[in-house]
Order: sequence, then structure tokens, then C-alpha cells
Amino acid sequence: MAEILKGAEVTRSLNEDLARRTRMLREQGTEPVLGIVRLGERPDDLAYERGAMKRAEKVGVTVKQFVFPADMTQDALLEEIRKINRDDQIHGVLLFRPLPPQIDDEAVRNELAPEKDVDGITDISQAGVYAGTEDKGYPPCTAEACMEILRHYHIPLRGKNAAVIGRSQVIGKPVAMMLLRENATVTICHTKTVKMDEICRRADILIAAAGHIGTVTKEFLNPKQTVIDVAINFDEEGKMKGDVVFEDAEPVVHSITPVPGGVGTVTTSILMKHVVEAAERAQDSRRK
Amino acid sequence: MAEILKGAEVTRSLNEDLARRTRMLREQGTEPVLGIVRLGERPDDLAYERGAMKRAEKVGVTVKQFVFPADMTQDALLEEIRKINRDDQIHGVLLFRPLPPQIDDEAVRNELAPEKDVDGITDISQAGVYAGTEDKGYPPCTAEACMEILRHYHIPLRGKNAAVIGRSQVIGKPVAMMLLRENATVTICHTKTVKMDEICRRADILIAAAGHIGTVTKEFLNPKQTVIDVAINFDEEGKMKGDVVFEDAEPVVHSITPVPGGVGTVTTSILMKHVVEAAERAQDSRRK
Repeated sequence: MAEILKGAEVTRSLNEDLARRTRMLREQGTEPVLGIVRLGERPDDLAYERGAMKRAEKVGVTVKQFVFPADMTQDALLEEIRKINRDDQIHGVLLFRPLPPQIDDEAVRNELAPEKDVDGITDISQAGVYAGTEDKGYPPCTAEACMEILRHYHIPLRGKNAAVIGRSQVIGKPVAMMLLRENATVTICHTKTVKMDEICRRADILIAAAGHIGTVTKEFLNPKQTVIDVAINFDEEGKMKGDVVFEDAEPVVHSITPVPGGVGTVTTSILMKHVVEAAERAQDSRRK
Repeated sequence: MAEILKGAEVTRSLNEDLARRTRMLREQGTEPVLGIVRLGERPDDLAYERGAMKRAEKVGVTVKQFVFPADMTQDALLEEIRKINRDDQIHGVLLFRPLPPQIDDEAVRNELAPEKDVDGITDISQAGVYAGTEDKGYPPCTAEACMEILRHYHIPLRGKNAAVIGRSQVIGKPVAMMLLRENATVTICHTKTVKMDEICRRADILIAAAGHIGTVTKEFLNPKQTVIDVAINFDEEGKMKGDVVFEDAEPVVHSITPVPGGVGTVTTSILMKHVVEAAERAQDSRRK
């Protein structure tokens, strides 16, 4: 019987800390503000936005919405981002992507000021994660949510073997870099990996971010293992499932995050944490 | 008896290709130019510079030296770099580091225009390697030299297990990212790795970049393995040695690079390749 690493517990502890910090910021005259930039009305974006706004309210972060038509030109969007960059009342920006087809994703995301890049989408944020430095931009929220769960539940990382399934810029690679920084020995697996089950079975920490139901079966697991299931998949009945066959894993492994109720729950709090950090940094730099 | 993966053979083939391409560039009116920026007269820098100038001459790249006093101010150096950025007669820049203590390394290296960053020192180049894209800056030359050797000797990478010893931004991490891009399954080991011998023994490709004589012994090796020894160490008698105990490895493994005569030999040719690419890109963009 594995310990279930619930996201809610991590979130509760994070939110308490954030609420305390936003109170302090407000007392000192700084209102921490997240700007949400959305083009059009995609249901996924709207759902995430509602969740973010609720979480923001809870921890004392103000949200400013910037909603534009889905057929907006790239130049107009770039101009709006430049305006937001100049606005020192906005500390962090969440830009919904994928962007509509008339817009060059790379040009737009790199227009954002790295110090406001709380979702880790700029090249500078990526270079920061890759270099293991903290002074440039922010890591992608989902990758950091994995690390926050490991930290909260005191899972040792130093000298441990970690296997990461997936090599995307949003989860696989950044979580690998962050595990490496904590002195884990990291193996990155992907669709071309041969005998993935053997490789993963040797891991003390297994991060599953393949995005396919049933990727991680019994053969991938061992009794000392901590499993972080990052994926959000939906089965034929529309039920939310991770990459891991939970019924197989739960009796075997040491500890595991559930889906739903695991990593996904923590991600929005990490976004808020980055906004609060950005507001604190902005306040510090004004004082200098 | 292992196949010895000699750097000279790789270099010869690279140089022939580069000489052909620089002839073509010159016929079309573009003289490919590498700018070398050096502060002071450190013996290491001077030795590397001599090697680079010789290699440049051989393949038809012109070198312009920018030599400044070691006590130059940061502002003065930044101004010189901005001048070089604006000079469209210079296609690539090699900046010797470490820089003197009065100069902030990060500020200076990121002042360089990414399209001239043939040594892969800017954050933008690093983000490019990390993202696996080729359109931004250049990867560090030593990391690419490892890949060039593997390519030249037709070592299969797809689905193979690669172990990298070392996690620096100059070799360990970039070579891991480049192996990943070639669809190898990559494990990154370092000083905190436990049972490194076991992990490495399972690898089909072993990249040793620890920087310590005798790191890789028999226990790390298997008969199907290709070993790339990146390190340049010197023993008590001043003799150049890699990380691998060559006498132990050579009877066991499938193939191995020697030290000296392996990776180090290829690095300068990679630098020239980047200059030629930068010159070709500059020519292409002028034509548009």
C-alpha cells in the first residue's frame, strides 16, 4: 500500500505561505498582480483561467485580464505585450497558448520581459532552468509542481536514480534539469527508448509525463519507488487518467501521486508563487 | 581490441568540406571572418589561439585579433563587443574566458550577438541547445565535437543507452541534450551519483567529461561500448591523460577515442565550421 502524495496538502501549505507574503506586500504598498493574456474564448483557456482566478483570490493576488479577439494581428499583440512589460503594476504574465495560426509563437513569447515570465515560456527562462540558475525568469509551473511535491513529502533526491518519461520543453526536460540540480542521477526516456520498463524499474523516483494512458505498468515499478504522474489523459468514458495504471502501482510502490488530485492541483499555486516572487523582486529593486 | 576513433580522421573530412565551402563563399564575395577577443596574455589562451589561427588558415577562414589589456574596464569591453556585433565583416567571435575579475562574465557573454556566437556562450545559444533547435546561436564546440566523432564513425544512437559523466554547461549538459535529440536514452551522472560504474557499464555510449584522471575503470565498461573521452588532464609527469584508464579500456570496449588525438583535435574544426555556417547565413540573409 503506497503513501498517496496528495496535491491538496502541498497546495494548502503553499497557499498559507503565499497569503502571508501577499499580506506583507500589500502592507508595504505593493499589490501583487498577475496579467492574464487571452486571445479568443477557447474552452480550455477559460477553464484554466477560472481556476487561476479563484486561486489568485485565495492567496491575495490580483488578476488583470487582457482579452483580445482571436483574429488579432501579431503586431497588435506584440504592442500589447510591450505595454504590459512597461507597466510596473503588473508583476507576472500568463499568456494562453497555443496562439492562433496567424501569430508566430516564438516571436510573441520572447517579447515578454523575462522578469514577468511566471509561466517560464521565454528562451531566457528556459536558459535559466537549463543552467540551474534562479535569477533569470521562472521554470515551467508543472515541472516545478513535481519538485514541490517531492520537497513537501521529504522524498530524498541526492544520489538517487530518477527516470523521467518524456522530453518536452514544458515538463520532461525542465524536471530533468531540476532533479539534476538536486543531485539526482537522471535518465531521460522517450518514445525511442528501448526496454523502458527495465530502465524505470531501477529508478528511485519515476516522473511519468508521456501523455498516454497505460504507459507505466507493473514492470516499471519497484517497492522503494516514488512515482509522480504528471499526465492528464482522458479515457473513452471521459474519465481523467494519468500515465500510470494506478491500480497496478498503488499496491507495489512506496508512494505515488493520484490523477486527478496530484500534480495538476499544485500547478496553479506554483504560478501564484512565481507572481508573488516577481512582486517581491520588483519591490526589492525599487528600494535599491 | 577496440577500434580507435581518431580525431584526425574526423578533422580531415571536416576540413575538406570547410575548405570547399570557404572557396565558394569567397567566389561569391564573402570572406568568412572569425574575430578573436583576448584580454591579456594568458598562456592557455595564446596556445589555443595559435591552434585556431593555424586551423583557420588551412580551411580558408580569416582571423581578426582583438587584443586588449587585462585591466580593461567592463564598459570598454562591452563597447568593443557592440562594435564587433555591428561589423558585418565579422561572422563569428571567440571570446577567451575566464575573463579578468573586474569583469562580469554573464553581462559580457550575453552582449554578443547570438548569430555570431560560434562558441556557444550566450544564453540564447544555450536555450537553443536545450530546446534542440538549430536556428539560434551555436552549441559549445567540444560537445558538438563528440557528436561529430559519433557521426563520422557511424555509431548508432537511436534507441541506444548513453551515459554522460559530468553536468557542466560546456560539455555534460549540452552533449546530453544533443544525444537526446538523436533519440538516445540519456543518463546524466556526476559527483553525487551512486554506483556510477554499474550505470555506465549498462551504456552503449559512454561520454566521460569528469575532468579527473582514472575516473573510468574496467567496472564502467562493456564489450559493445563506444567510449568518448572528453577530458584533458595532466598527470604528475605532465603527460596528457583523459578520464578513462586507456590501457584498461582498449582491450575491452568496442571503440574509444584516444587522449591526446581524440575529441580535442576536432574542437577547433567545429569552431571553424560554425564560422563558415555563420558566414553562409549572413550571405543568405543579404540576398533575401
